Amino acid sequence: MKSVVINGYGTIGKRVADAVNIQNDMKVIGVSKTKPDFEAKMAVKKGYDLYIAIPEREQLFKDAGIEIAGTVDDMIKEADVVVDCTPGNVGPANLEKYKKEGVKAIYQGGEKHDLTGLSFNSFSNYDDSFGREYTRVVSCNTTGLTRTLKPIDDLCGIKKIRAVMVRRGGDPNQVNKGPINAIVPNPPTVPSHHGPDLKTVLYGSDITTVALIVPTTLMHQHSLMVEIERSVEKEEIIETLEKRSRVLVLDAKDGLGSTAEFMEYAKELGRSRNDLFEIPVWRESINVVDGELFYMQAVHQESDVVPENVDAIRSLLELEGDNEKSIAKTNKAMGIL
Amino acid sequence: MKSVVINGYGTIGKRVADAVNIQNDMKVIGVSKTKPDFEAKMAVKKGYDLYIAIPEREQLFKDAGIEIAGTVDDMIKEADVVVDCTPGNVGPANLEKYKKEGVKAIYQGGEKHDLTGLSFNSFSNYDDSFGREYTRVVSCNTTGLTRTLKPIDDLCGIKKIRAVMVRRGGDPNQVNKGPINAIVPNPPTVPSHHGPDLKTVLYGSDITTVALIVPTTLMHQHSLMVEIERSVEKEEIIETLEKRSRVLVLDAKDGLGSTAEFMEYAKELGRSRNDLFEIPVWRESINVVDGELFYMQAVHQESDVVPENVDAIRSLLELEGDNEKSIAKTNKAMGIL
Repeated sequence: MKSVVINGYGTIGKRVADAVNIQNDMKVIGVSKTKPDFEAKMAVKKGYDLYIAIPEREQLFKDAGIEIAGTVDDMIKEADVVVDCTPGNVGPANLEKYKKEGVKAIYQGGEKHDLTGLSFNSFSNYDDSFGREYTRVVSCNTTGLTRTLKPIDDLCGIKKIRAVMVRRGGDPNQVNKGPINAIVPNPPTVPSHHGPDLKTVLYGSDITTVALIVPTTLMHQHSLMVEIERSVEKEEIIETLEKRSRVLVLDAKDGLGSTAEFMEYAKELGRSRNDLFEIPVWRESINVVDGELFYMQAVHQESDVVPENVDAIRSLLELEGDNEKSIAKTNKAMGIL
Repeated sequence: MKSVVINGYGTIGKRVADAVNIQNDMKVIGVSKTKPDFEAKMAVKKGYDLYIAIPEREQLFKDAGIEIAGTVDDMIKEADVVVDCTPGNVGPANLEKYKKEGVKAIYQGGEKHDLTGLSFNSFSNYDDSFGREYTRVVSCNTTGLTRTLKPIDDLCGIKKIRAVMVRRGGDPNQVNKGPINAIVPNPPTVPSHHGPDLKTVLYGSDITTVALIVPTTLMHQHSLMVEIERSVEKEEIIETLEKRSRVLVLDAKDGLGSTAEFMEYAKELGRSRNDLFEIPVWRESINVVDGELFYMQAVHQESDVVPENVDAIRSLLELEGDNEKSIAKTNKAMGIL
């Protein structure tokens, strides 16, 4: 049983903690917070040992009646691997700590690829992180792209990918984010930085991305235009995506015509936090015209990377040599379709 | 001085009426309404003769204290041309009326191309409607696409166009429309119907479109990926679009990074209703990579087709044989950049 700590118990961190804790080959021995907020209180209630990232704030946590187990420095001493879910700007400083302590670490997509020199997706390059010290689970968007593009590439080969990514303005709890009533090219330059990030896990892919932000909180949406090597019928694409775990082919005509309806579908799955770990693809959108494949999918930005984090732990700690076996274990424990 | 009537004084109709009335070769001799609402009252206040579309509602208008000049049947008798801005479902029945009365008519993009068998854009096919009985000004989205694609096609030739159109959920006053918090593929099938509509005015164009609806009211947004015949520098594209009237190349870095900021720019122009008749293109988005042109633009759905309606009147009524002269006249009267 390997020991995992979560540095940064926020949107992603709390989900990874819960996902790790239901596996049978790893357990969470500590989580960290910078602020004594409701998440800190609920982490303790759930039974997690809580460590504080800023030692000077010990009294603040005591005043809030939150029991702490020590500092982040204490926490990482006991760990086999740290899952770093801190905001993007503090990751590089943390890496020095992890190196000094000799603890392995997994970063999130908010960090640059260069920080670890290695990025991770369960389906496309699990082996490359095997036994390594540090890796980085790519962003929710890149994870979503890889989930569907990898099996398509395996099926018929991909020449060129064009993707327009319509991103949510903020997560449901981010009341200070926008826009409220606008469409925002973000970045206004084309291509966006999302394309190159795909290449860190789906090697050699030729992708151009355009990205926008819109006034919604629920999910990102991707419109994909994929020039394929070998012409296939759309039915083959559907069959391929249906076979692939962590991808769902859903029907707009079944009352699932939008991201809001996908989130309602997730509620019916009865999972904690109504998460949708899978990437839903609209069946009606899948089409092949003149050797070009079109489809539209959505990404639950708060949760799709969670199973990949569990697999990344197995890869770094050499818990499982076969990526499909790790994927199957993670899926089974988390109830992933 | 030619006599124009506006059948349907709503979002588009009221704008076309005002635009026609400031030209020196045409005047509005009547507008119509189905309901005695604030727009009907303000039309009369502005001095327009108001006709009612449903004769049985005469008393309703009288009760509301609105003076009416007659019915739509009376109105069209006096006209050289009708601009039909009625909702999409009543257009076909109206055409029978216009035929019987021998009056020319201009439809809007909500109607199918087949209704008139002829569609109109000032830049791409003005001559084809010259002297004809009926035409159709294409939708706000198709007008926006044609405005920028036509000069690009003239400059360097276009092989293939891919466009993702992120559409506003409703106009600012449409309180019963959605979505409030979702991204809606609309249609969920790919390609969408928008592509074929472009071909009704930009003949022979090879275009694939994908369309979404998002929670905003201000403008539509287009992300364009255009394979071009002859490789050009992005500076040539910028210069071409800057020279073209009814197109604006604006800088995100000047505080114009979103559709909301474009609408704020329109307010500073001091126009009636803060309309933005021009198609704004984000300068930063214009880029040429491997023989493919990328750019992003926005469309003020309430107003961009208005100048095209004025030009369409000149074309049908043979008021001006040269499209560029009509465009210049319309622009000058309306203060278009």
